[in-house]
Amino acid sequence: KAANEALFDPNDAVLLLLDHQTGLFQTVNDISVSELRANTVALAKIAEQAGIPIIYTASEPNGPNGPIMEELPAAMPSAQYVARKGEVSSWDNADFVKAVKATGRKTLVMAGVWTSVCVAFPALQAHAEGYKVFTVMDASGDVSKMASDAALARMTAAGIIPVTTNTMLSETHRTWNRPDAAKWGSLYSELVPEYRAVTESYTRAQEAAK
Amino acid sequence: KAANEALFDPNDAVLLLLDHQTGLFQTVNDISVSELRANTVALAKIAEQAGIPIIYTASEPNGPNGPIMEELPAAMPSAQYVARKGEVSSWDNADFVKAVKATGRKTLVMAGVWTSVCVAFPALQAHAEGYKVFTVMDASGDVSKMASDAALARMTAAGIIPVTTNTMLSETHRTWNRPDAAKWGSLYSELVPEYRAVTESYTRAQEAAK
Amino acid sequence: KAANEALFDPNDAVLLLLDHQTGLFQTVNDISVSELRANTVALAKIAEQAGIPIIYTASEPNGPNGPIMEELPAAMPSAQYVARKGEVSSWDNADFVKAVKATGRKTLVMAGVWTSVCVAFPALQAHAEGYKVFTVMDASGDVSKMASDAALARMTAAGIIPVTTNTMLSETHRTWNRPDAAKWGSLYSELVPEYRAVTESYTRAQEAAK
Amino acid sequence: KAANEALFDPNDAVLLLLDHQTGLFQTVNDISVSELRANTVALAKIAEQAGIPIIYTASEPNGPNGPIMEELPAAMPSAQYVARKGEVSSWDNADFVKAVKATGRKTLVMAGVWTSVCVAFPALQAHAEGYKVFTVMDASGDVSKMASDAALARMTAAGIIPVTTNTMLSETHRTWNRPDAAKWGSLYSELVPEYRAVTESYTRAQEAAK
Amino acid sequence: KAANEALFDPNDAVLLLLDHQTGLFQTVNDISVSELRANTVALAKIAEQAGIPIIYTASEPNGPNGPIMEELPAAMPSAQYVARKGEVSSWDNADFVKAVKATGRKTLVMAGVWTSVCVAFPALQAHAEGYKVFTVMDASGDVSKMASDAALARMTAAGIIPVTTNTMLSETHRTWNRPDAAKWGSLYSELVPEYRAVTESYTRAQEAAK
Amino acid sequence: KAANEALFDPNDAVLLLLDHQTGLFQTVNDISVSELRANTVALAKIAEQAGIPIIYTASEPNGPNGPIMEELPAAMPSAQYVARKGEVSSWDNADFVKAVKATGRKTLVMAGVWTSVCVAFPALQAHAEGYKVFTVMDASGDVSKMASDAALARMTAAGIIPVTTNTMLSETHRTWNRPDAAKWGSLYSELVPEYRAVTESYTRAQEAAK
Amino acid sequence: KAANEALFDPNDAVLLLLDHQTGLFQTVNDISVSELRANTVALAKIAEQAGIPIIYTASEPNGPNGPIMEELPAAMPSAQYVARKGEVSSWDNADFVKAVKATGRKTLVMAGVWTSVCVAFPALQAHAEGYKVFTVMDASGDVSKMASDAALARMTAAGIIPVTTNTMLSETHRTWNRPDAAKWGSLYSELVPEYRAVTESYTRAQEAAK
Amino acid sequence: KAANEALFDPNDAVLLLLDHQTGLFQTVNDISVSELRANTVALAKIAEQAGIPIIYTASEPNGPNGPIMEELPAAMPSAQYVARKGEVSSWDNADFVKAVKATGRKTLVMAGVWTSVCVAFPALQAHAEGYKVFTVMDASGDVSKMASDAALARMTAAGIIPVTTNTMLSETHRTWNRPDAAKWGSLYSELVPEYRAVTESYTRAQEAAK
Repeated sequence: KAANEALFDPNDAVLLLLDHQTGLFQTVNDISVSELRANTVALAKIAEQAGIPIIYTASEPNGPNGPIMEELPAAMPSAQYVARKGEVSSWDNADFVKAVKATGRKTLVMAGVWTSVCVAFPALQAHAEGYKVFTVMDASGDVSKMASDAALARMTAAGIIPVTTNTMLSETHRTWNRPDAAKWGSLYSELVPEYRAVTESYTRAQEAAK
Repeated sequence: KAANEALFDPNDAVLLLLDHQTGLFQTVNDISVSELRANTVALAKIAEQAGIPIIYTASEPNGPNGPIMEELPAAMPSAQYVARKGEVSSWDNADFVKAVKATGRKTLVMAGVWTSVCVAFPALQAHAEGYKVFTVMDASGDVSKMASDAALARMTAAGIIPVTTNTMLSETHRTWNRPDAAKWGSLYSELVPEYRAVTESYTRAQEAAK
Repeated sequence: KAANEALFDPNDAVLLLLDHQTGLFQTVNDISVSELRANTVALAKIAEQAGIPIIYTASEPNGPNGPIMEELPAAMPSAQYVARKGEVSSWDNADFVKAVKATGRKTLVMAGVWTSVCVAFPALQAHAEGYKVFTVMDASGDVSKMASDAALARMTAAGIIPVTTNTMLSETHRTWNRPDAAKWGSLYSELVPEYRAVTESYTRAQEAAK
Repeated sequence: KAANEALFDPNDAVLLLLDHQTGLFQTVNDISVSELRANTVALAKIAEQAGIPIIYTASEPNGPNGPIMEELPAAMPSAQYVARKGEVSSWDNADFVKAVKATGRKTLVMAGVWTSVCVAFPALQAHAEGYKVFTVMDASGDVSKMASDAALARMTAAGIIPVTTNTMLSETHRTWNRPDAAKWGSLYSELVPEYRAVTESYTRAQEAAK
Repeated sequence: KAANEALFDPNDAVLLLLDHQTGLFQTVNDISVSELRANTVALAKIAEQAGIPIIYTASEPNGPNGPIMEELPAAMPSAQYVARKGEVSSWDNADFVKAVKATGRKTLVMAGVWTSVCVAFPALQAHAEGYKVFTVMDASGDVSKMASDAALARMTAAGIIPVTTNTMLSETHRTWNRPDAAKWGSLYSELVPEYRAVTESYTRAQEAAK
Repeated sequence: KAANEALFDPNDAVLLLLDHQTGLFQTVNDISVSELRANTVALAKIAEQAGIPIIYTASEPNGPNGPIMEELPAAMPSAQYVARKGEVSSWDNADFVKAVKATGRKTLVMAGVWTSVCVAFPALQAHAEGYKVFTVMDASGDVSKMASDAALARMTAAGIIPVTTNTMLSETHRTWNRPDAAKWGSLYSELVPEYRAVTESYTRAQEAAK
Repeated sequence: KAANEALFDPNDAVLLLLDHQTGLFQTVNDISVSELRANTVALAKIAEQAGIPIIYTASEPNGPNGPIMEELPAAMPSAQYVARKGEVSSWDNADFVKAVKATGRKTLVMAGVWTSVCVAFPALQAHAEGYKVFTVMDASGDVSKMASDAALARMTAAGIIPVTTNTMLSETHRTWNRPDAAKWGSLYSELVPEYRAVTESYTRAQEAAK
Repeated sequence: KAANEALFDPNDAVLLLLDHQTGLFQTVNDISVSELRANTVALAKIAEQAGIPIIYTASEPNGPNGPIMEELPAAMPSAQYVARKGEVSSWDNADFVKAVKATGRKTLVMAGVWTSVCVAFPALQAHAEGYKVFTVMDASGDVSKMASDAALARMTAAGIIPVTTNTMLSETHRTWNRPDAAKWGSLYSELVPEYRAVTESYTRAQEAAK
């Protein structure tokens, strides 16, 4: 029904992680590098937990852009890597688009570095071809706040849906009334530092009450 | 007439207060906890004063998310509490939607923690089902400024109307030329700290003039 | 032609200054009071210089909201004052709307305190009735940055055009190739503090060259 | 011993609250008015709870500076009010100094509006006459951050000790191992909004554990 | 295809640099003057490298607005200068519009000082006449953040596409798999200070490995 | 007595205004140009009102540094101008030092542009020669916040006393119980924008009470 | 010699970790909780690596203050825990002081929550008794920036030395010319997120060069 | 005389540039990388222009710390490079101290990355051995604002003098009445972006006047 279509549908989704590379990280100024890395890993784990296919790629990883952040592949054993042939936009790479199409899914969740380039370009292109696109602003990074503000305005005006990692977690999770609820709870603690502290306090308070 | 429909209609409205819980408050970083609590209480009092029905709910209040803030229920004696069964979005809970529909009203005012989740999800869902939705940004909170900025962009693009508590107060109040004007005046003083000081200065200046 | 209609037309415009009162100024937190006053005076002078009718009003000026800022009336000798009968939105006051209609003009420029209330309400109402509306963000003020950000998003989504005082000056001025160019130049110096210094430096450099 | 003298001694202290007036509050820009008022009330309660004498005063309370904030006197029933005769610095008023000397105590805790004037002047004067002086930065306010930064530097260089309200609470409280511990606990909850939420969560977690 | 049309097409584009003058620079407060100058030069070099025609102009360059920044003409030997006759908006100058039309291109990239005036006016006008318009926010400057935020909202609502310099570089560059890749690489190093350092570190690391 | 010596003594003071020039103003980034100019004029009026001698000077006023801000001389009819011969520090100019010594006073109040240069150099030099020196941070300006923070730390460590304009006003004024109290009151309204509004509200409230 | 005594001496040092508890973390507003936790763990590892004794304690860990952060004990197997009896300042607890004295060392490194209380109190007390004290500002947290700024000023004026975690790492490490250099290198990568990325880029660049 | 000794003496000075390396630059968060590089080059040119000896060094330049920024050596042809043997503090390297002593000068100007480590350590050590030390805060960088704030407090308390690059330029320059004045003027334009624009405007204004 209408209410359902207004939100994210994990069963129709693919997660695209674009150019999370250590050289590019050094140029990011709209979010801290530690938050960016933690959010990206969390996003990968959310997808793994929900059975959402993951495709990731890198831009010239043997050059100054650097390798994919080292902890990412381990966090997403099911992910598929697609090498590019120099294209800045992954959507300009035929192998990448082919991999997306092979999933048969029409909702794309994108994050990457830089927001206004490696995320915005394929987001705008895929949206123009009929995909529903979510961009995860805090699992992405850009050279300035002015750059990601402009990218947010540009993408929103084009019909792309801006979210953040914690929103994707909740929008995928949807209910605590499910068998794997504990696994979802631990993702909140991993993603939101204050939530971790809240949980530790809660556990101790209950122990002390007994 | 057109001019009237451009603004909020208290007689068609329901106030929905979503997950104002002390554990979630600890994760809020886009507004101070003291402002968030004060704004939420003020919002409840505005609704009480205007005869707007209030429905509130909590997400797993016996878990780390914590109880509803203690001063809220006392501020809204007419409010109805709806328990959820684990759903992150209150709109996914049949009892909640049923309670809203029972009011027969079609304008929803929503506030809660987190903005991008507990507010945005039901706001997007209800809007998709034909409701007119206002979201009160400063009686809500989120894990980062980036998160509530993204939520603001997402909701505005979908047709949801963003406001703040003081705006709701004025948009409900509408005129000083009414019998209960003094009660409305005291709500401004309670909500806006500087307005309280302005009023104290005014009163003293008039006493001194006599 | 299309290009012309894309910009502001001074010959179709009325300037509405709403509730620039000293008590309300004390509650403004999104712009400094000195900038707010200077911008409002400049806006009045722009309208006077361009022959744009000015209508102004106040909300309960004998109460805590306080009197209209003292330097404003002197800056706009042609302005018409309309008293209200307690209405928060000036558009809810029949005399005010009548005064606007009497000008026969269909473009409204609005500024006031608070942005999300005294500006946004009549802006949304007048726009709904077919007026083209510009709101001057920095000749207005609100209780928080979050409040004026929400008001900006709400008004822009509704089709209202956000500007700032300096933009209105240029959009009215349009060309240096006019007999009263010097008067326009002095308005820039009055409005933009750095421009004043640039002009002083320029004059001295030319004197020194001779 | 040396360790003891390095900290605040409540038994030698007097609390001086200087010009917490509603007109002056409107000029404060380095802290929010709501925090300033809440911190000042908390400071008064700390002193009442610890039996520290309180002296307060106002600068021209019938003029634009406005009356003492209304909730303050009720929070400190034991406090003594000293009227001034126009002096900007309370230390220039003989009655005020006499009241301080009458306590026989040599440690002064000062807070007020403005930090760089109503606090700094008597702080520097009393320190020059041999008193040990603590200034409570967040129960004071000034016209700009630059002003209170300069005041902090000036006072610290002169040997005055800068603190904040929460520090004074802890430095007076000193141990949870005392009969009135619960009263001290409630002061923390009143003063620190997040601490209040922590306590609510704790209580609920313990209830849920039973 | 749709994906291609969603992005910038360098072969249909003209770069318009509007009033990058040293007097106006002194009034810019939403970006640092050094970044503004560097971004503008980079934008010129991007266009030169891609064979995009460049047209530039100045507003009263013999008056206080000052001359075009000195390093700009040297960076764009192919650029055409169009003098204006006092018009604030370059689109109000017939020679300027004629020069744009002579290129036969329909995509305009605009940057200038002030964003809300010298950029927004011709952007809105040209867009109304059917051009696709990109505005480069960080090669432009305005008198306040509030002014450029309002301009961004106004232009985006009108259908104009906001970008930043680095985005234009990537959107023009599009692939590393091209004969002139090295020239594009050096533009990134020139534009993004951290990228320059990344490249220096990369080169040294490779030398050290040998 | 000790208490008196702890504060500023207007009868022993000279005000030195150093290089308040329109070209240098363009390089100031730690305070807005409008505040800097307003504070400087207020400082001059304070000295005039209190009979404090004023000496002012400029650095190469026929070159890019530009002329003294135009409104300053009119605000201080009693002031003495001393031309320099190229020295960056006014204390390196024999005529300047001679003019200071001719006053027979030993307390110097200094303000100027840049804080870390035109203020700090003569402040450090004069202090080394035995003068008591106050520097007025917000009637001075510097190229960055980092620069004025470093200057504040350097000067404070050397024994120089940092203040702001409003502090100098109060420290000179000292009591409302003096024949010229009204003149001092108007200086507060001129200097502190919110105080002006407070006063307007106060006056109107008293009128309304009658 | 003098140069050596000017820096930290790891062989004379004890690390004191004070009240790093999950309830108190919720009240910290001058640093993010994730940075605070990461810095505290790094500090513990630095001490372990250098053989510096570690003593840690908690304030009422069964109450709302909550338990010690869970990852800390595992990071410092050699650390000694001292329980307190309600004292706010650990230096008021005889067992704690005894444990410090038992190490025979005279240089104390302190970090904790809150900076102005749990760190400042024992720091001031121990310094008064002759210890050399370093306080690690970013492995500590406080309720506001104003609170930690005041604490920094108070402690520095008293002779206590302020540092940050990275400084302690370098000041302990001192040279890369030591057998355990690799272990120190990995601590930098763990502590400074950008340094980790730099190292990953470096390694890949060297691999690519071969 | 005393006034002279209060300021910097270029004839007694040595400039020490410490670890301006491209890997370390990536970890700097308290100043932008472009400003840091520009200020460092300017500092080198100031020393060259004034005949101040320059000594520079790097920490493990073949490792992740990366090479010295490439443009620096060319800006200081007279500079002497001293290689270290792994010491974090250059003052721990005998060759470095020997090179300093060989100059026979006793005033050291230091800048480097990180402020709290590579600058603060040798600054504190050299000061302890009797040198007069200036540290240039904005030609240095650190991992956080909190880190450089702590370093500023620590160094100032120890007697080290904090400055910024522009201050060093003026403190070396001292007078426009010298044969090489034009060379100094061009250094201001190079260092302060707004000053460059002021100069361009000035030159054009004079040309236009002729």
